[in-house]
Amino acid sequence: MNQRKFSIIGTDKVRKEAPAKARGEAIYTDDIKLPRMLIGKIKHSDCAHARIISIDTSEAEKLPGVKAVLVGSEAPNKYGIVPQAPTETALAIGKVRFHGEPVAAVAAVDEATADRALDLIKIEYELLPVYIDPHAAMAKDAVPLHEDNKYGNIAYMAKQDFGDVDKALAESHRVLEKTFKTSYVNHVFMEPHSCVARFDDNGDLMMWSSTQVPHYLHTMASQVLDMPMSKIQVTVPTVGGGFGGKGEASNNELVAALLSRKSLRPVKVTYSRKEVFFQHRGRHPIEMKIRMGVDREGYLTAIDYDGIMDGGAYGAWGIIILFYTAAMLHLPYKITNVRFNAKRIYTNKPTCGPMRGLGGVQPRFALESMMDDLAIMLGMSPYELKLKNAIDGKHDTVSGVHVRHSEYKKCLTEVVNRSGYLEKHQKLPFGRGVGLAGGYYISGTAYTLYMSYKPHSSALIRLDTESGVTLQCGATDIGQGSNMVLAMMCAEKLGLPYESVHVISGDTKNAPFDLGSFASRVTVAAGAAVCEAADKLLAQLLPVAAVHIGCRADQLLAGNGEIYSKFEKELRMPFWDAVEKYIDAFGPLTATGSYTPPRRTGEFKGGNVGHSPTYGFTAHVAEVEVDTETGEVKVVGYNEAGDCGQPINPLSVEGQVEGSIVMAMGQALYEEIRLAPDGRIINPNLHDYKVPTMRDIPHIKTYAVDSYDPDSPFGAKEAGEGPIQPTIPAILNAVYDAIGVRFTELPLTPEKVLQALEEKKRQEGLS
Amino acid sequence: MNQRKFSIIGTDKVRKEAPAKARGEAIYTDDIKLPRMLIGKIKHSDCAHARIISIDTSEAEKLPGVKAVLVGSEAPNKYGIVPQAPTETALAIGKVRFHGEPVAAVAAVDEATADRALDLIKIEYELLPVYIDPHAAMAKDAVPLHEDNKYGNIAYMAKQDFGDVDKALAESHRVLEKTFKTSYVNHVFMEPHSCVARFDDNGDLMMWSSTQVPHYLHTMASQVLDMPMSKIQVTVPTVGGGFGGKGEASNNELVAALLSRKSLRPVKVTYSRKEVFFQHRGRHPIEMKIRMGVDREGYLTAIDYDGIMDGGAYGAWGIIILFYTAAMLHLPYKITNVRFNAKRIYTNKPTCGPMRGLGGVQPRFALESMMDDLAIMLGMSPYELKLKNAIDGKHDTVSGVHVRHSEYKKCLTEVVNRSGYLEKHQKLPFGRGVGLAGGYYISGTAYTLYMSYKPHSSALIRLDTESGVTLQCGATDIGQGSNMVLAMMCAEKLGLPYESVHVISGDTKNAPFDLGSFASRVTVAAGAAVCEAADKLLAQLLPVAAVHIGCRADQLLAGNGEIYSKFEKELRMPFWDAVEKYIDAFGPLTATGSYTPPRRTGEFKGGNVGHSPTYGFTAHVAEVEVDTETGEVKVVGYNEAGDCGQPINPLSVEGQVEGSIVMAMGQALYEEIRLAPDGRIINPNLHDYKVPTMRDIPHIKTYAVDSYDPDSPFGAKEAGEGPIQPTIPAILNAVYDAIGVRFTELPLTPEKVLQALEEKKRQEGLS
Repeated sequence: MNQRKFSIIGTDKVRKEAPAKARGEAIYTDDIKLPRMLIGKIKHSDCAHARIISIDTSEAEKLPGVKAVLVGSEAPNKYGIVPQAPTETALAIGKVRFHGEPVAAVAAVDEATADRALDLIKIEYELLPVYIDPHAAMAKDAVPLHEDNKYGNIAYMAKQDFGDVDKALAESHRVLEKTFKTSYVNHVFMEPHSCVARFDDNGDLMMWSSTQVPHYLHTMASQVLDMPMSKIQVTVPTVGGGFGGKGEASNNELVAALLSRKSLRPVKVTYSRKEVFFQHRGRHPIEMKIRMGVDREGYLTAIDYDGIMDGGAYGAWGIIILFYTAAMLHLPYKITNVRFNAKRIYTNKPTCGPMRGLGGVQPRFALESMMDDLAIMLGMSPYELKLKNAIDGKHDTVSGVHVRHSEYKKCLTEVVNRSGYLEKHQKLPFGRGVGLAGGYYISGTAYTLYMSYKPHSSALIRLDTESGVTLQCGATDIGQGSNMVLAMMCAEKLGLPYESVHVISGDTKNAPFDLGSFASRVTVAAGAAVCEAADKLLAQLLPVAAVHIGCRADQLLAGNGEIYSKFEKELRMPFWDAVEKYIDAFGPLTATGSYTPPRRTGEFKGGNVGHSPTYGFTAHVAEVEVDTETGEVKVVGYNEAGDCGQPINPLSVEGQVEGSIVMAMGQALYEEIRLAPDGRIINPNLHDYKVPTMRDIPHIKTYAVDSYDPDSPFGAKEAGEGPIQPTIPAILNAVYDAIGVRFTELPLTPEKVLQALEEKKRQEGLS
Repeated sequence: MNQRKFSIIGTDKVRKEAPAKARGEAIYTDDIKLPRMLIGKIKHSDCAHARIISIDTSEAEKLPGVKAVLVGSEAPNKYGIVPQAPTETALAIGKVRFHGEPVAAVAAVDEATADRALDLIKIEYELLPVYIDPHAAMAKDAVPLHEDNKYGNIAYMAKQDFGDVDKALAESHRVLEKTFKTSYVNHVFMEPHSCVARFDDNGDLMMWSSTQVPHYLHTMASQVLDMPMSKIQVTVPTVGGGFGGKGEASNNELVAALLSRKSLRPVKVTYSRKEVFFQHRGRHPIEMKIRMGVDREGYLTAIDYDGIMDGGAYGAWGIIILFYTAAMLHLPYKITNVRFNAKRIYTNKPTCGPMRGLGGVQPRFALESMMDDLAIMLGMSPYELKLKNAIDGKHDTVSGVHVRHSEYKKCLTEVVNRSGYLEKHQKLPFGRGVGLAGGYYISGTAYTLYMSYKPHSSALIRLDTESGVTLQCGATDIGQGSNMVLAMMCAEKLGLPYESVHVISGDTKNAPFDLGSFASRVTVAAGAAVCEAADKLLAQLLPVAAVHIGCRADQLLAGNGEIYSKFEKELRMPFWDAVEKYIDAFGPLTATGSYTPPRRTGEFKGGNVGHSPTYGFTAHVAEVEVDTETGEVKVVGYNEAGDCGQPINPLSVEGQVEGSIVMAMGQALYEEIRLAPDGRIINPNLHDYKVPTMRDIPHIKTYAVDSYDPDSPFGAKEAGEGPIQPTIPAILNAVYDAIGVRFTELPLTPEKVLQALEEKKRQEGLS
């Protein structure tokens, strides 16, 4: 309806880099081998909470082949993604706060020597009490992990109160109160963190790293290494996934740089899978106590949220995720009374951080489950209740968030129709059920994490008759396909084939500034910068073509490799001929564009952390079969309908949606990092930590609803994080539909199902 | 006098890349190892002239580990640096024209397998007569190397006649006629040719190559592979020297690309030293018969030049060198009657091509030797004669070449004064002597080799508060230091430290267009583009600073990291603060510049091939000791005075001058590729082919005369090819001064000296 006709946008394009990846030719950071490069290795703490009494590196230093040994005191500057509240150092100083924490590092001529050197480093610890449960960490007499933290082990606290929650709940027809607990899960990207750092004699630092955020790594490396940003270049080779886990500087990156500075040789530090679990930054386990009210007709009256976030040992993205969790309560339903009360707690475990759909996945699990319960309590279809409350079109939340465009209702209706939800819900045999849930996500944020007013994205396009189209943009392709999206937009604007655009990205010097790949921001933000650059390029080129053709520039368009008049068919010339004429007369043909998100208020306050230029919406219906013998939950059918605005590449949107659903399925049913009481991870490997495999994955049907955000580049919105939101409650609502048990703790293992079925049987026997 | 005050220009800067090179960390093409990369190897002809009857690759194809076998017929498109007259194919088709010619190629999983596969390729030849002497090749009944060539084995002929040579010679006081022969020498750059090519499934080709001319490789790869230039990217890793020898596509590059297309895997082809001699493109041996007239006062009246250039098997740069040789007769002396008559001949030997100072070295050897003779005949100091005839300031040659700036007379006077030439010439004991010679060279050319009107150089500068200064320019650093020169110019313009400029160069997609590194063009051409870009950047930035400071932009200057008023000391602000304000308000801060050389006529004609924006001049005095027992000539002292305009980096100019002198010393005294009668190279290795070592090199004193070309960027002119021109005649004039023998054939081996001394003794005995 709103959609426009495009020649490239909206068509299924195979990514240029796909064949090289499939054949193993793509170059990931660990593939890089530089002359004289050393292998860096990290010595990890073998206790979870302890004072470091001494570190003896003398034997390691003596080992032939060892070129540098590093300890924390050599790089005392703290860093953090929010620069106002840094909590970490490259290596532990004075104490360790989780089992596996980096304490020392070596660079040696090969891996075996480096490993031997690690064994020779002797560390003496004085053990402290280990808190792996946030409640224990919050106890009055608990030893604070961070002595300089104001509130013991409470890292951050937040309260927000919009409307009058108490009054609204008191006046509600029904109020439901429940407690939900989410689990401790990792992103499990395929490529472990890897970084190659090379210092040269000019004191310049080059870093090749598998990061989502070259810019943030750039800033943090500058802090930790105490050197100007202009002397550091970060470049990003092919990335094998990040999902948030590569969303800030990681220890391997800083250690590689520090070891290179010390040894004056290139140093590579690639994590093992175990070290990826140490680095972690996975999803916060949250214990959420929620009260939710509804009126007689099924309109939601209030949400009262009380949450305890288990943050692990360090700050990281914690404060941002805390506030995003608050923001995520307000959508995608109309609700005018919302109270948020939450704490993020330091515990002795690897640090939690940003993971795909951060802030939304846990409350969505709780809220969509409770709305199902409320609907059933009211004798209403969950679809009806959700549709009733769903926002539509433009919407302003009570917290001050402005949604400029939403087709969420379409998502609900489409997924319900396509899945046959209404025909199945409460009508399938015992053991089989369907569940509906909705969700949404931001398409970028209004602010940089350090409150700068510079553009968030910028792009530069250069046209040359020989080399073609070069598009430089600092946006980082982490496997999500941003290079493809930007190339498609650029090509559409210029009327050239998508394949003709050469993208230079993910580099702090070779491409103009971009914040990085997080918060589903790239399509909208970098896309807007690219579109502006392309428009400015045409504004230069079309008048030159007009001179040649003999007409006014304002009647000319670029398309199909030509510049042509929209009025007179015979007025046209080949695009590249016009470029040649331009270059001969004016010199290089380039243009830049940039994007700064709209800001609704002049100041930053908790209430508008959720501000995003625009939002994507999605609704899911899961169908499950519960094996009542084994307790196994099998997802047997899956439908999704999403509002991602105009899909730039539908094939790629489908991939994003499927990936989101599978990832959330893992969190719903299988995944959990398990810790021994001493804080050691029991399952830090992909044998014991279970992720879904092809055999677990149902046939997923995705559908993009007709949508076009007129204020977005080519009408596009996010598609990679919204779709992870509804999966957990959709599956758990389906389980409820199948066996009548409401589960509130993740993951939903066969043991829990069997136990619940037995309990249910016992209850039914009692009654 | 003309020099201006700069803060960076004119200071000795160490190149940023120098330490990495010294430590072995710089990444040359052969250091690149890509996943799944194959090793490509070439099967070379073992006869010098033959018809190819058959090539049987079947056994090679069967060898396990062999992924592609290639023969010439698979890539029939001919190529050549002058696209109008292509003569070569990637692999021989139908016949071979020199011993060592590439005939077939393989790509295999490792070098040993590739070598075994080469052995399995069976080629049947029908031998043809081998011509290693151009006179034999020109014989009436000679078999033409190229059947489609119009004039048998005469590749190209040129005649130019300016003034009235016959009349001038007839009226001359003295006329000298001599024949000179130069030798067959190779550049002997340290890094052999190497190329890694990678085709992807999109049909895009990426080439990493050790080339001076990514742009020309780009065009030729496009021709040979029959694919659009926009689908090819050429990038240049660190280069270990080129000196002209990497001045066009070489077989290894095309073969790597073709093998990669065939195997769909990355392929590396690195030459052995022997293969470098096969690829060759070294200096043309020329037999020059010259008549030169002089009047009573020592003013030159006419030059009549007759030359036969031995071109080897293919066209290559031949026609360009032929015309440059003609052009080089007209300077640096005023002479109004010049006749040039020359042929370039096809012979059965590796192809000659562009080598440092192309076109000038051979005639300079002859002319400066003859001027010495004429001076002595007139009882005049060679210095006096040369100074009398030398051009000064602006000058127009009879051939139409316009010199806009020259300080050649200063060079002559300075080098004579500094070396004590006048005190030594004809005054040293037998066996010791001094020789004076002068020379000059172009600083770029007025035309591209394919007569395009697009700018020859372009540059793009981007300023960012975090990443600093990024300068993109397609100019190619082949070890001559162009990145440094361009960074210094950019930094000087912006008033920032040289170290703060990050240069992206030598890449056809990642940097804007530049023709490449040849003809001593980069400092003037790319330098001008950089200066224009910097000026345009300041034109955007200064008004923003003016708004902030509260003054008019036209009183602001950039310097010392600040923007400041030239009138009022207190009106100033930090440079980067102004950049921040610009970016916050306007978005990315970039500017481009380009350079197209001035053209004096609208059309191309032989007479103005020598056109260059400007010219560098130089004069040398060599002092030699001739061991009359062994015949060994030892250069014991060396002085140079050069006019390279304003030296950008005096340290680097010194390096260029010293390098030129040492290279020419090799040609004068040691170097010669020797061929067996069957066309096989006898000495294709650095054990048997002798280049000067540290033990042979005298202490060289260089001096940059006060000079500033006001029309050049920062007054600069070339410094890397002019200084190779006078060395051979300076040494040979010194030998004449030492032992009274005029040598006219290179190299001047001890055998030749001994033979000449014996002949002289015999002659003196006779008289």
